[in-house]
Amino acid sequence: MTIKDIARLAGVSVSTVSRVLNNHPDVSDTAKEKVMAVVAEHNYIPNTSARELGKSTSDNIGVVVRGMSNPFYTNILTVIGDRIEKAGYTMVLQQIGSSDDEIMAAALMEREKRLLGLIFLGGKLDYTKKQLSSINVPFVCCTFWNQYGTLDKNSYSSVSIDDNQAAYKAVEHLYNQGHKKIAVLLSGPDDGSVSQVRFAGYTRALNDFGLGLDKNLIISVNSFGIKDAYDGVKKWLKKDRDFTAIFAISDNMAMGAMKALREAGKSIPKDVALIAIDGIEASEYMNPVLSTLCQPMDELGSEAVKLVVDIIEGRDEHKHVILPTTLRKGETLK
Amino acid sequence: MTIKDIARLAGVSVSTVSRVLNNHPDVSDTAKEKVMAVVAEHNYIPNTSARELGKSTSDNIGVVVRGMSNPFYTNILTVIGDRIEKAGYTMVLQQIGSSDDEIMAAALMEREKRLLGLIFLGGKLDYTKKQLSSINVPFVCCTFWNQYGTLDKNSYSSVSIDDNQAAYKAVEHLYNQGHKKIAVLLSGPDDGSVSQVRFAGYTRALNDFGLGLDKNLIISVNSFGIKDAYDGVKKWLKKDRDFTAIFAISDNMAMGAMKALREAGKSIPKDVALIAIDGIEASEYMNPVLSTLCQPMDELGSEAVKLVVDIIEGRDEHKHVILPTTLRKGETLK
Repeated sequence: MTIKDIARLAGVSVSTVSRVLNNHPDVSDTAKEKVMAVVAEHNYIPNTSARELGKSTSDNIGVVVRGMSNPFYTNILTVIGDRIEKAGYTMVLQQIGSSDDEIMAAALMEREKRLLGLIFLGGKLDYTKKQLSSINVPFVCCTFWNQYGTLDKNSYSSVSIDDNQAAYKAVEHLYNQGHKKIAVLLSGPDDGSVSQVRFAGYTRALNDFGLGLDKNLIISVNSFGIKDAYDGVKKWLKKDRDFTAIFAISDNMAMGAMKALREAGKSIPKDVALIAIDGIEASEYMNPVLSTLCQPMDELGSEAVKLVVDIIEGRDEHKHVILPTTLRKGETLK
Repeated sequence: MTIKDIARLAGVSVSTVSRVLNNHPDVSDTAKEKVMAVVAEHNYIPNTSARELGKSTSDNIGVVVRGMSNPFYTNILTVIGDRIEKAGYTMVLQQIGSSDDEIMAAALMEREKRLLGLIFLGGKLDYTKKQLSSINVPFVCCTFWNQYGTLDKNSYSSVSIDDNQAAYKAVEHLYNQGHKKIAVLLSGPDDGSVSQVRFAGYTRALNDFGLGLDKNLIISVNSFGIKDAYDGVKKWLKKDRDFTAIFAISDNMAMGAMKALREAGKSIPKDVALIAIDGIEASEYMNPVLSTLCQPMDELGSEAVKLVVDIIEGRDEHKHVILPTTLRKGETLK
């Protein structure tokens, strides 16, 4: 059965059938119903899938997301899913907890789902060659790269912002407003995650501005989650440290901090200024609006797919792309 | 090659290999590395997938999400992904825009990905039998059911809250606090979506409380998105209607409304009380904390997977499950 047969049986033109099957918006409901009735009756399988049936490989691209409830990843994932589909592949999504092993998850998925390529959305920055030896398909690190590990740069691709520099800029904004006692809210200063890189940018800025690192101003909490940030800041505030500003390593964590500060009777930005990195939509609706360095989420997602597809299709070699951040002024800076 | 061979080559026990391959947390990093090195070297494919290669069908369960950037769906999707994986199936995710045709998307996906079953996460409530004739696998509507359509109840499954009753309760909370001029914020009073059901619950409550429907108090905006809600409320406030409370049909829309109210100089809840339905995490960190009727997101996701898997595996017939909401008191009610 061909799309000509469908057109004949449905009493519509071949181009209408094509538009329906390609989910084109410009087609009437009546035509859609006629075509889909024929498709259903004859259990028609589009050519791409019919070819698929005879192949021993798949058209699967795996995406491993670390902590999908993080709204920052959700936005990027929406773009990744859309672009994988548009490029003619199938996204196989695996969500893992923020402390799970993404390499193990990916290695098993690679075999079970016969992947052609992989995108890691979030992950550790300290992979060794040995750890990655179980991955046999091209992979792209999205939102991070392997700066603490030993991978060859030409053995994988990445797309991310310059996290160290973004943290530096965040602290610089606070310093330029006269702040000298700047706390940092993070999930760990040496956990091999993006938290560690942003902490390094924070300390680099402190040194450059002659402020020096005060360990009493490090608020280290259990995860990147909003609730853990809230609980952690609430507990830390009881220690009554001397500070006038907080640099939060993520919007989500900053949102948790804002509630803890408010409950402790601290006014933002009058008593405590606040800046973060990420730029998720929800933080734009906080009261006050969060000041933050926005990551280009659409570009991070579309670039990750482009990188992996170009390599799968033999058009390119591994690359490392760094994208810029933009300041959302917000209301948590003076 | 069997897992016995892997155990021998890696120099670990068979049960260790099994734990590694099943991603069991209770296994040392050293053992993991040894096992994965052997797996990689011999390109070992676990039994489940080896069987898969010879089959003409797949283990795919399709999930069609309407508007994945909605944080309410993200939380449910996380649970759905986890439960599908645990039940031994593969989730194939398709995201569609909030005005796209989910039936068309599902019908094509069913054929292209050879689905065994389908979950619709969000969708229209007015499907006809004819429209659904192109779907040949069991499907579950998650967070809604077909109350305005003509489907046989025993031809599909659903899991949702009682949306009409939740809206009624929301209005009741406002009425019990003395509000008589209660506006409603929705995406359309007759759009065949959950917005229409919640609007029906709103008007039912108004009638029961002798308030009557005032068309000037209907704030109808372009989508379920936070920005459209913000823009819509901002525009509506310029009309200077007489009102003391808003029932927003979703948390996300309420968050947009809060910013518009704040910018218009209205204090919440002193000038305007506010209540919503959904209970997403972010709204708990708003200032003030949003009062809302929380949907049981974990149960909605896990029940949807249970329903579709039970039918795929022949253990059950189609069912319709209604789950309760719980009030988060918050700070936007007096």
